[in-house]
Amino acid sequence: MKAFVVILGFLGFTLAISVDDTHIHAAKKLVGKNSASPTGRFFENVGYGKTTPSGEVDPEYWRALARSKLKSLVEETYNYKQAKNVIFFLGDGMSLNTLTASRIRKGQLKGNPGEEDQLSFEKFPHVGLTKTYCTNVQVSDSACTATAYLCGVKANSFTLGVSAKVEYDNCSMSMDTDNQLSSLADWAQKAGKSTGFITTTTLTHASPAGLYAKSANRKWESDTDIPPNVKQEGPCMDIAQQLIKRSPGRNFDVIMGGGMGKFLPNTVVDVHGTTGERSDGLDLLGLWKDMHPRGVIVSNRDELLNVNVSKATHIMGIFHSDLMDYHSLADPATKPTLSEMTEAALNHLSRNENGYFIFIEGGLIDQAHHSGQAKLSLDETLEMEKAVQLAVTMTNAADTLIVVTSDHGHPLTIAGYPDRGTDILGLNQDDVDSNGIKYASLNYAVGSHQYLDENGKRINLEGIISDEPGFIHPSQIPIYGGVHSGEDVGVFARGPHSHLFRGVMEQNTIPHLIGYAACIGEGATLCNSKL
Amino acid sequence: MKAFVVILGFLGFTLAISVDDTHIHAAKKLVGKNSASPTGRFFENVGYGKTTPSGEVDPEYWRALARSKLKSLVEETYNYKQAKNVIFFLGDGMSLNTLTASRIRKGQLKGNPGEEDQLSFEKFPHVGLTKTYCTNVQVSDSACTATAYLCGVKANSFTLGVSAKVEYDNCSMSMDTDNQLSSLADWAQKAGKSTGFITTTTLTHASPAGLYAKSANRKWESDTDIPPNVKQEGPCMDIAQQLIKRSPGRNFDVIMGGGMGKFLPNTVVDVHGTTGERSDGLDLLGLWKDMHPRGVIVSNRDELLNVNVSKATHIMGIFHSDLMDYHSLADPATKPTLSEMTEAALNHLSRNENGYFIFIEGGLIDQAHHSGQAKLSLDETLEMEKAVQLAVTMTNAADTLIVVTSDHGHPLTIAGYPDRGTDILGLNQDDVDSNGIKYASLNYAVGSHQYLDENGKRINLEGIISDEPGFIHPSQIPIYGGVHSGEDVGVFARGPHSHLFRGVMEQNTIPHLIGYAACIGEGATLCNSKL
Repeated sequence: MKAFVVILGFLGFTLAISVDDTHIHAAKKLVGKNSASPTGRFFENVGYGKTTPSGEVDPEYWRALARSKLKSLVEETYNYKQAKNVIFFLGDGMSLNTLTASRIRKGQLKGNPGEEDQLSFEKFPHVGLTKTYCTNVQVSDSACTATAYLCGVKANSFTLGVSAKVEYDNCSMSMDTDNQLSSLADWAQKAGKSTGFITTTTLTHASPAGLYAKSANRKWESDTDIPPNVKQEGPCMDIAQQLIKRSPGRNFDVIMGGGMGKFLPNTVVDVHGTTGERSDGLDLLGLWKDMHPRGVIVSNRDELLNVNVSKATHIMGIFHSDLMDYHSLADPATKPTLSEMTEAALNHLSRNENGYFIFIEGGLIDQAHHSGQAKLSLDETLEMEKAVQLAVTMTNAADTLIVVTSDHGHPLTIAGYPDRGTDILGLNQDDVDSNGIKYASLNYAVGSHQYLDENGKRINLEGIISDEPGFIHPSQIPIYGGVHSGEDVGVFARGPHSHLFRGVMEQNTIPHLIGYAACIGEGATLCNSKL
Repeated sequence: MKAFVVILGFLGFTLAISVDDTHIHAAKKLVGKNSASPTGRFFENVGYGKTTPSGEVDPEYWRALARSKLKSLVEETYNYKQAKNVIFFLGDGMSLNTLTASRIRKGQLKGNPGEEDQLSFEKFPHVGLTKTYCTNVQVSDSACTATAYLCGVKANSFTLGVSAKVEYDNCSMSMDTDNQLSSLADWAQKAGKSTGFITTTTLTHASPAGLYAKSANRKWESDTDIPPNVKQEGPCMDIAQQLIKRSPGRNFDVIMGGGMGKFLPNTVVDVHGTTGERSDGLDLLGLWKDMHPRGVIVSNRDELLNVNVSKATHIMGIFHSDLMDYHSLADPATKPTLSEMTEAALNHLSRNENGYFIFIEGGLIDQAHHSGQAKLSLDETLEMEKAVQLAVTMTNAADTLIVVTSDHGHPLTIAGYPDRGTDILGLNQDDVDSNGIKYASLNYAVGSHQYLDENGKRINLEGIISDEPGFIHPSQIPIYGGVHSGEDVGVFARGPHSHLFRGVMEQNTIPHLIGYAACIGEGATLCNSKL
């Protein structure tokens, strides 16, 4: 069999063949008679799926559901007012595949089949699709996409807050103010709004850094991360310094996430027990405290929950030396959840009667996908959808625009014909490969684990696949860390002018829509006549 | 290395590891120094992407593009009128991944990088996402989904036009009128509209059959396809007979596609040179002609183009004995394109001042995906997007609702970090697997070709991967025919009440939205007070 495949492989192509979409069913359950049709499209005993929930058998169930949806679609009025507040959620690597799988997981955690469930932001009235390519790549990274969805301009891969004139790794070009872009954070601050960001990665990671950094390389998070040859060419400010010293970074009212090491010298040990990463001796946290004498730095859950939001002018939460822990693996006593950080931030920011802008990132969705750890990725997605629900509860759709989107996809698929309610993290119960071996519903195109035997044949995963958070789902192309994917991602919106988030758009359109709705930024807005 | 992977495989999980989304870049281009950071997130010489188009370097390019999009979004007025005409396009298996890849292909065929292009329906003002599961399956087939998007009710996999009370293969339950559903075609005919359908598959294939058939098994296309044991249990009418003899099938003004064999006895040879498939001796084409004495049956391109649409009361086009040929492999002299069929049909149907409803299927998108033949699948998608563009040109958005959607996905991915403008059908130019072997951007989770050597290691596809239409893209899980995928698909809309097609919805909502807009069907419409 393998020889056959290889021979075909070297032929490189075959004649166009007519493969019907039931061959796989046939392959798995063909018994007795063969095709009675010259087209080869008739097989016996193809039936499957014994698990229709009893309530769904009645067609009135579906008609009532559709009528209810139709009613809300028809009756919902659009909100043409100015957005006072903007909450921007970003699920890093949160592909549409990830959303479907996470939705099923959410339902299954309640004991339901799962497919019928909804994520909090899937209930939002408006959705669009965004094209995620960057100027020099078909499939993008998290830096150039952050530049697109935060600064409104597409740029080169790996660069942050600068136009595509700036080539990767060219610091002097990135330091040229002519090449620097302003972000939603700049726009909001200039309009007198309070601003903040939250991430589950480091404060200096690509996504949040898109708010405040101008860098030819997203990896220059601390001075130690900038290689000597770049430093020799001229002054080059690392991302952590830009956050603390420059506008808009230094003006953020709320900053929360991980990555304490980027802000401390390598001569001190931080409160999390890890040595700082900086070679230049700078204590950026001390500097931040000097700049904000009534600001508060917190580093664990208790401290966060006990911040007096009406007394503190600024809040900086740094809950880890590096990336924060996956929610399901974190110590719940010391590490705040994304929802807890969101609640504290919104309580703080909402005191400004001019409104606020906040960026909230579920950054470990991407990290888990890179590791092939689908369960963790779905869990992180569900943590973000809980934070979105909290934001919905804490705000008013009349004056608060909430946008939820992703930067790029991951090549995760939900494949085969699993029965209704099949564990989304498990094996297809009936589908098998051409050697009779079952396979998982979730697979990655690229990843670390192929689960092959010594002959390169897929092994049986029964008894191996597990719901341990660290289980690595199978992939096709062996690489230590998974890769991104290039298909469009979703953008979900609620609140003033959320109806602008519709159709298919370039990713860099997003901040222009937000700017229009909130009357911030240098472009056309609801409050000027630039359109 | 392989042993390592297998051992990890049998462990079944690893500790949660922090994999950064640049590891792959690092892996492919790491030269010289290793990480200088304790987090392992700094690598040198990660740069790539030399291909930024010169016009896109200027940030004003992106701002102008966004401003133009914003302007159209703000200024576009919604159409709250009744839809006189409805054109429903269905791309079978046309996942959102397929759309991104097809868009890139479209641009590349013009000599451009590709990613910046747009499919005709991606310019539509409204888009929604639909959940494609059926009542008893997490990942659906084309029959139960057709029941959802045409009859408004979710049902069991493999069943057509009947509620989920009807179990797969149970003919007597499907013959019980209590279990039968009405479709958009019924609704439109009752409202006095002309009706029709076009498919590139057979007239009796699952998607179009959702319009007119009530069947416990989508495979019962002719009487020969119904196994003896089913026939013994009682009368069971095959799908072809239902099309010709029953309402709404017999009332269609226009029917076009393949599958002539399903309508002719196995004692005759059809005009395409193939023996009919029917065992019962019925000549259903003769019967149709008797029922429609001024109707015309055409079987090749010339005949179609020469139909006198104002003289013929009905048009039946059957251009193949079985499925139609892939567009790029078909004889252009004898086989009409989807656009040519669309043009003839719209010319015919648009004579009715009460309007029309037509269903147009690009059915071979799915067939090509099942074969792993990505090029053919993208080509078929582009053929459908041309037909959509033609429909846009031939109609008026003021009175014609056009809806474009898909029934289910396919587990195709666009993976890695290809440079801008990389041939979407080729290899990533820089990305390699852990053995240093390049890989294709497009891969399927499940399919016939893994391209492995005798040790189960991926072979180098340089010189093998080709743009021959028959080339089969690589897949992970070896099965003769590929499978479907379970993620949401898009629904794009233009015209009266197209703004109802927004947000995330169950797939069976679609016909209820169309019914509302066009004032057809038994549910709530714009013209009644049932909401």
